[in-house]
Parts: sequence; C-alpha cells; structure tokens
Amino acid sequence: MKVNDHLLNLSDSYLFSAIGQKVKEYRLKNPDCKIISLGIGDVTRPLVDEVVRSMEEAVAEMAAASTFRGYGDEQGYLFLRQAICGYYAKKNVCLHEDEVFISDGAKSDLGNILDIFSEDNTVLIPDPSYPVYADSNMMAGRNIVSAKGNIENGFLPLPDPEIRPDLIYLCSPSNPTGAVYTREELKLWVEYALSNSAVILFDAAYEAFVHDPSLPTSIYQVEGAKECAIEFCSLSKTAGFSGVRCGYTVVPQELVRDGVSLNRLWLRRQTTKFNGVSYIVQRGAAAVFTYAGLAQVKENIAYYMENARLIAQKLDQLGIWHVGGENAPYIWLKCPDSMSSWDYFEYLLSSFQIVGTPGAGFGAQGEGFFRFSSFGSRENILEAMARLS
Amino acid sequence: MKVNDHLLNLSDSYLFSAIGQKVKEYRLKNPDCKIISLGIGDVTRPLVDEVVRSMEEAVAEMAAASTFRGYGDEQGYLFLRQAICGYYAKKNVCLHEDEVFISDGAKSDLGNILDIFSEDNTVLIPDPSYPVYADSNMMAGRNIVSAKGNIENGFLPLPDPEIRPDLIYLCSPSNPTGAVYTREELKLWVEYALSNSAVILFDAAYEAFVHDPSLPTSIYQVEGAKECAIEFCSLSKTAGFSGVRCGYTVVPQELVRDGVSLNRLWLRRQTTKFNGVSYIVQRGAAAVFTYAGLAQVKENIAYYMENARLIAQKLDQLGIWHVGGENAPYIWLKCPDSMSSWDYFEYLLSSFQIVGTPGAGFGAQGEGFFRFSSFGSRENILEAMARLS
Repeated sequence: MKVNDHLLNLSDSYLFSAIGQKVKEYRLKNPDCKIISLGIGDVTRPLVDEVVRSMEEAVAEMAAASTFRGYGDEQGYLFLRQAICGYYAKKNVCLHEDEVFISDGAKSDLGNILDIFSEDNTVLIPDPSYPVYADSNMMAGRNIVSAKGNIENGFLPLPDPEIRPDLIYLCSPSNPTGAVYTREELKLWVEYALSNSAVILFDAAYEAFVHDPSLPTSIYQVEGAKECAIEFCSLSKTAGFSGVRCGYTVVPQELVRDGVSLNRLWLRRQTTKFNGVSYIVQRGAAAVFTYAGLAQVKENIAYYMENARLIAQKLDQLGIWHVGGENAPYIWLKCPDSMSSWDYFEYLLSSFQIVGTPGAGFGAQGEGFFRFSSFGSRENILEAMARLS
Repeated sequence: MKVNDHLLNLSDSYLFSAIGQKVKEYRLKNPDCKIISLGIGDVTRPLVDEVVRSMEEAVAEMAAASTFRGYGDEQGYLFLRQAICGYYAKKNVCLHEDEVFISDGAKSDLGNILDIFSEDNTVLIPDPSYPVYADSNMMAGRNIVSAKGNIENGFLPLPDPEIRPDLIYLCSPSNPTGAVYTREELKLWVEYALSNSAVILFDAAYEAFVHDPSLPTSIYQVEGAKECAIEFCSLSKTAGFSGVRCGYTVVPQELVRDGVSLNRLWLRRQTTKFNGVSYIVQRGAAAVFTYAGLAQVKENIAYYMENARLIAQKLDQLGIWHVGGENAPYIWLKCPDSMSSWDYFEYLLSSFQIVGTPGAGFGAQGEGFFRFSSFGSRENILEAMARLS
C-alpha cells in the first residue's frame, strides 16, 4: 500500500487554517481583547430575502411526500442552469444549459477539474494567487511554473512567449490582489492559450464586484475564449453563500482537446464522483438570479464596496501602496517599513488586534505584501481603520 | 495539452444515466402508461419532522446578521461530528471527533478518497458492486482485481490469499445484492487487510437497515479494523437525504501507512479541495441523530422494509431465486428463464412498465441477475407486485 506521496510535499496546513490557529492562540492569551478580522474574506451580511424565501419553500416541499425531491441531476437542476444562462445573456455571453454544471462551490470544482487532465501537463499559475491552484496541482505531481505579479505590472502578469503551458490559471478580479484584467489583456491570454492549445481555468468568483462597465466579468466576453477556457464562479461572495455552498462551472461545447470534448469528460467525472447539490441550496441559488434577488445582492455588494473605499482611504492617508478595492472586495498593500508579510501579520494582530492575510501565503511574489478583505461589518471596518490611525 | 485518457476507458454513460435515458425514450413512445420505478434506489418518503424543524431554524439564522454563518470547517461542524460520535458509541465504537469528516455524500468521498493513495496500488473490488468503485479507480488508471460474488457464496465473497491487494472495497449491507457480512466474515477481511498492509474502504451506506442484532453495522465493531479501514456512510437512505446531500467518512487516527497518518492526508485533501457542507444541511443532519430524529427515521426504514418483504414474498411465489431484503433495502434476484440482465430490464419495462436495475451494470458477475429497490411508495410496490402476478 502506497500513499500519494505528492501530498507530503504540501506544506502541513492550509493558509487559512494556519491563520486561524495563530488567532486562536492569541485569543487564548488575550481573552478580553476584541479581534477584528479583515482576513479570510468571509462575508458577514445575512442572506437576502428572496433567497431565504426560496429556501423556506424548498424545505417545506421536502417535508411533504407529494413535493419531496430525491436525487437530482449530478450537473444540477435545469431551473438553476437556465437561470445562470440568463445571467450570462445579460453579459452578452450565450451559453447552453448543458455547458453549465452546478456544484457545492468553486473551490471543489477548481480542485476536481484536474481529474480530466493528464498529470503530465505543465501548469502556469499566477504568483500571488489563491493557494488551491498550486496545492491541488502539487497533489497530482504536476509541473508548475509561475506568472509573476509585481508592482511594475500592477499584479496583472501577461503571457510570456518563452513558456509553453498546458493549463493556465487566471483570476479576475484577482484574489488576493483585487486587480482586474482589461478586455485587451484577457485577449492576449486567450490568443496565447489558443496558440499553445492550452486550456485557461478562469476563476470569476469575484465578477459581481466589477462596477466599471469597460471591464470584463466573464472570459467568454473575449472572442475565441469558448475554444480555450473553462470558467468557475461561485455565489459565496456574490450572494453571501460561503456557508450555504453553491458554485457553477462553465465548460463550453466548443472546448475540444485530443479530439475529446472536455464538457463530456467533466460530465463523466461529475456523474462518477459527485451526486449534485442540495435541492434546498439550488432553490436559494436560483433566487439570486431573479430580478428582485439580483437587486438585493447588489445592495450587499455596494455595502462591502463602501468598506473597501474606507480601507483604501485610510491606506492613502498612511501613505501605503495598494491596488484593488475598486472593482473587487480585496485590497492588496505593500507592508510598510519593508516588513515581511508574516511580521506585518504579527504586528497588526499584537498592536491593533487586526487580522489580515499575509501576502506570502499566496506565493513567493506575495512576500512583503498583505491582503485586506472588505467583507466585515461597517462598524468593524471603521473601528479597525480608527485603530490604524 | 493532454486529457486524462484513462477517462476514455470508461463506458460512455454511467449506469443510472443509461437507465434514465432508456426510460425517457420508452415514456416518449408511451406517454399514457404509468411506469413504476424499482430502479435507482431513490427514497420517496419526505424528510422527518425533526430534520425539517432544524433546517427551518437554520434558514432563519442565515437570514439575520447576528446569527448568520459563513464558512464552516472543511471537515464539518463540531456539533454534527459529535452527534455522529454519539451514534457510533451506541454501536460500541468509540470515535474521536477528529476522526469524522462531513461531506456532501458518500459518493463524493468514495471518489475523492483516492486522491490520498498512489496510483500504483492494486485495488480489490467485489463483483457485483456499486459502479463508482471501479469507475473512480479506472479514472486514475489503477489495476483492478475482482472478488467474485455468486450464488454459491451468497454474493458475499471472502478473501483470496492468492491476491495481494492494496485497497479493498467492501459494502455491507451490499449494494446491489442486499447481502450482509457476519462479524466473523468481516474479521477474515480485517485479518487479510492487516496481513497485506492493505486499506479497506468500507461502505456502510445501508447500515441503518440492519435489524438482526447479531450482524455488524460498522467495520469498527471488528477488532483491528481501526488499523486498516476507512468507513463511509450517508444519510441518503438512513434519513431520506438523497436530495439534501450529506454523508460522513471515518478515518481513524490509528490508520497509518508509509509512516503517514491517513487521517492527516485526508484532512489535507479536504482542506485543499473542499469547503464544507451547507450549514443548513448540517443542522438537518444533526437532527437525525437526536432521540426523536432517530425514532422518526426508523419509522421510514420500517416502511421500506415492509416493501422489501412484499417484493420477496412475490418472488417466492414466482419461484425466483433471490437474496437481500431482510437487512437491506435491496433485493437481488436471478433473472427467470436464463434471461440476460438487460433483456429482463427490457422485458419488465415493456411488459409491466416496471423499471429495475440490470445486474450486469454492477459487474460481470451481475450478468443474469437483477436488482429491485424497496424505496417506492407502498401503493407503487403493491401495484408493481400485482402486475408481476
């Protein structure tokens, strides 16, 4: 019996678990202090009324034999896939229901999608980026190369013709930096992917935070993307679903490699290793995409974006370099006084009882940087900013 | 870019999707007939009151800022893991909360657990068995050998000392046969696994249907099992959660291979590629394990077991050989007149508008056999049995 020893190459604990542990230890030693988290980026606003009402109805249906639902399709209920197609139509992206797969969240899909690709592929991952991209590929022993973000490129790296990757991760608006690619920049990535027969894994989890109408909210707004990109999205941030668990993945029918439809491969993977998302959750998710639902979640997004504005304002006052926060819920800053990311983490925790996320946790290029999230309550954001004064 | 071409070795459509397609076609041609499904084995009784009440409360909590919950632990809420430990304590199995992992269902965990094992391992899979075991290993290119079930061994194969597997799947009560291993038989498997340093993947999804107190409902009721077995369980059949989605997996701390704790590896896999189960679902699941919840789900199980008795009675009248149905919701029968499994499927559908599951779909040894499930309504079971007369 052999274990998968690639797993042993991963650092022992996942970034946010490590932060959680440090905060726990601090709290034990300082039981009376009020710690404010600008850390993991978990939402704090409750679910909107439309979602709550739909989930209440769904629970009631499950309580009566005549309306009870057992197994649904592994790829999700048609009513939800159709609602998502409608949402994309408003972005001028035409999708067929069969191209949309519902899941329990983008994190699961981003990890599980790798089942359909050979382990021999070379993977290009932005640095810094969401740790799941690198970790899930390390688990399978894939070769990883970096697309380096830095102050010069505004943490929006562009294709390097010297590198010939098979899989390319992109996240826009970016976690952790909050930077957003323009349509022209995404076009460069699509052309690069097509010329290398590569596949882009496009993480659009923060698309709902884009307010500038000139910026793309889906990679499919770029011509040719359907031939080279899979898009992942989530309701965690869009609609406060981090504890409800629902996301979706788009695999276009046009996406073919080695003569094989990737849509068909993903369907086969999902029908074999997944059994669909809770009916109650899917009903809640569908409510997000109604006229009233979208209006309600937009109010919450506006609330968080005002938080982001307050954080950016304070950083400007303090003369700290930063990006993001305008079309994304994250603000990425350069640690003052050339502090390392983890030193700044300890400094903020011990001096101000503020928790943020060390940039180094998102890759080597993140060293010396730090992420604030705008998902807290207004009261906490104001208090945290006052403490920083 | 290379796809994972092991996926291409899988048959094009998953068993139950194939059945669904055939039924759909028949329905299109015969729109007025009433088809009764004794097929996929999906429950039909609504959720019990305790579960509904807890989920209603949880939805209400998610609607208010003061009680809203975002991300939970990837391994599940402590309240649910403790409830499951309490359930195991009644089986005389002592578990620690850290050994229990909550998921969206046993199917996901049975597939995903393979991430922690090397692809070089040889896998022993009962034939017939739940197709997910073989398919998920074929996806990773693992070598598969069979433990053959047949009428002679009552579809309960025992270890073959000639074979030296690394991973061993067992399912008891069995899907698809409904046969249940005795404690003495499971002891032979545990000893065999220990002597080969193998790991048993024990699927206990149907444990709640065991009524004979002499039969084991967990592999950990056998001495030494904690050193060699991972146990998977689900609320789909226990509490009608097939559309709610919740399962759990037990990885004992004693389970160490290559000097590595498999519990730690699974935690690392789950924290990387999974983000936990819906809070609302976990609250519903916890309600199942309360005193009132267990009493209520037992009533539903008794209802299904009466269905099983009615099916078995009819098969006896018809002189058809069968097993299962006494401590399991499935009845496994030999197709009459030496019909093949799929011929019998077509015969039942076209002559009686009854859908069952062809045994051949569960492996080569299932050819010539057929599975009935007892999860229908009493009315439908009675009507189906009347049609068979």
